[in-house]
Amino acid sequence: MLNDKNLYKTPISKYGEFGLIQHLTENFTIKNNSTIKGIGDDAAVLNPENKKVLITSDILVENVHFNLAYTPLKHLGYKSVVVSLSDLAAMNATPEQVIISLAVSNRFPVEALDEIYAGIHAACKRYNVDLVGGDTTSSNLGLVINSTVIGYAEENEIVYRNGAKPNDLLVVSGDLGGAYFGLQVLERENITFKSNPNFQPDLAEYSYVLERQLKPEARTDVKSLLKEMNLHPTSMIDISDGLASETIHLSKQSKVGFAIYEEKIPMDNQVITTAEEFGINPVTGVLNGGEDYELLFTIPVTDYAKIEHNPNFTVIGRATEEENTVLLPKGSSQVIPLTAQGWDPFLNKHEK
Amino acid sequence: MLNDKNLYKTPISKYGEFGLIQHLTENFTIKNNSTIKGIGDDAAVLNPENKKVLITSDILVENVHFNLAYTPLKHLGYKSVVVSLSDLAAMNATPEQVIISLAVSNRFPVEALDEIYAGIHAACKRYNVDLVGGDTTSSNLGLVINSTVIGYAEENEIVYRNGAKPNDLLVVSGDLGGAYFGLQVLERENITFKSNPNFQPDLAEYSYVLERQLKPEARTDVKSLLKEMNLHPTSMIDISDGLASETIHLSKQSKVGFAIYEEKIPMDNQVITTAEEFGINPVTGVLNGGEDYELLFTIPVTDYAKIEHNPNFTVIGRATEEENTVLLPKGSSQVIPLTAQGWDPFLNKHEK
Repeated sequence: MLNDKNLYKTPISKYGEFGLIQHLTENFTIKNNSTIKGIGDDAAVLNPENKKVLITSDILVENVHFNLAYTPLKHLGYKSVVVSLSDLAAMNATPEQVIISLAVSNRFPVEALDEIYAGIHAACKRYNVDLVGGDTTSSNLGLVINSTVIGYAEENEIVYRNGAKPNDLLVVSGDLGGAYFGLQVLERENITFKSNPNFQPDLAEYSYVLERQLKPEARTDVKSLLKEMNLHPTSMIDISDGLASETIHLSKQSKVGFAIYEEKIPMDNQVITTAEEFGINPVTGVLNGGEDYELLFTIPVTDYAKIEHNPNFTVIGRATEEENTVLLPKGSSQVIPLTAQGWDPFLNKHEK
Repeated sequence: MLNDKNLYKTPISKYGEFGLIQHLTENFTIKNNSTIKGIGDDAAVLNPENKKVLITSDILVENVHFNLAYTPLKHLGYKSVVVSLSDLAAMNATPEQVIISLAVSNRFPVEALDEIYAGIHAACKRYNVDLVGGDTTSSNLGLVINSTVIGYAEENEIVYRNGAKPNDLLVVSGDLGGAYFGLQVLERENITFKSNPNFQPDLAEYSYVLERQLKPEARTDVKSLLKEMNLHPTSMIDISDGLASETIHLSKQSKVGFAIYEEKIPMDNQVITTAEEFGINPVTGVLNGGEDYELLFTIPVTDYAKIEHNPNFTVIGRATEEENTVLLPKGSSQVIPLTAQGWDPFLNKHEK
């Protein structure tokens, strides 16, 4: 409903593989000193300048990770970069390069690829990363995007998932739940649209949650925020699945437990009103939804004063000796054990 | 015809995403000092030890790059690593890590993934590379494999495509055409099988060309062979598309032309006999087919004596001033201009 495919005309076959890559990447420029050679040879050549190299890959598949009925292609291109950037932010590294592999239907016009690449370009510009390679091929299967992001860090800057200690504070950046409730709105509108294609929804009141779903941002700024605060997390992960699933990852790898204070979980007002409208507990959305791409990390309790009044971060819990993760509901002495019900691509699908 | 899918039983949903990755990767061990952290965190952490980092990504899509009717899954896993290793060999780099992203149908049983990962494992072992990451997801579209390979080189070891000079010799490793004619045999047998599923073909006489197609090897050994010979190529590329297309890449990027002596092109006897059987000129297969994954490079003519009698390499032509690529047929004064008719995923499909 957000794309008017009738506007697109040029067949991909006009270009062929090499001409197409050249066409799609001609507006990209190299910004980082660590990039010696970008697109145009058998491989990219990078100069890590004595730093450690961090690298991660994510694959996004049509009708599993996104639905083209309500995902603008430009946003999809942007998001494909952001999801991998977020992984590097979660290691406390600085991303500097990205490689995109794309499998697209022959029936896709060049203008559709231009939109995807416009989104990739916007993300590269916003996050100061260089596009240094890629593979573009046809697919009679649908759209698949694989993004690989390369970043750098000094060895002592890197934060793994396995360093949390009992009594550490559990901290989250930004606020949670937006992307999950944005998805609920989009799926509802998509069903409405199918039964009445002339219906023009007014989505202004959902602007924040929709943006969180369609155009998420990676918290690559957290590395410098932490440095300014003289804080070094003992463990860190990004919230691509639900808060429950990510906390359990930290728990398992650090061999500690976690208690999360329900009342401390930061949520935007729009998350709360949208959750109410859908009859879903907003905390359930936060725990089991995903794609907020905020960072979840632990710090020594002795560092509490450093983070207490910082508006970018919220202390939502603490690490415990026993290796299990629980929710402590507001105004109750109840303890709710959490299980990982984060989004699983083999069990859940976006498409209905 | 090579896979008996009835043997496979375990549904992927038994594992979920994280359990599945753990199951698939539990037999992989870390071998290289440059790998600080492999699978299990938000990103892999690598130590380039003052070297330059080289990285490349390739995406393989079902029914575009491979046909599961005649491609054993183990071979497919092996090949998915090899195609990227070959790109690093073409830069004169030493590959040490690989990251695999996989999108598979929910209908695929775990045993099918085990086969793919057995192939990836075999390639990692054969080429001494570490599997350091990956993303596995479902797909209602078919099988997609993206491989990213990371390698290292001293800056002065790296060979680009753009350094060939007029009068340089054009050299190829190994022999050419096998993979193309192997594909012809497989496609013919596949059609025969469709009309008569009980037919058991005897493919022994095609063993070499079939292996070249189904289980190609990357010439990562060439780096040390060249070093022993005290040879530094002025330009290099791997032959993933046809010889014509790759030579034209070197031509365009080095701004020289090339003359290829038809009679010098190294071909196995089985390539010649199979070509004869199919009524195809073997040289046409070499020029326009692909997937041999041999290396094509240029050396100064003054280095001729170093390579003249080496059985691993054949001088097949020379660089010329004028920027065009021609074939000089045997026993003729004719000059045939070559155009890039290499395999193009937007124009050609393996599936008929």
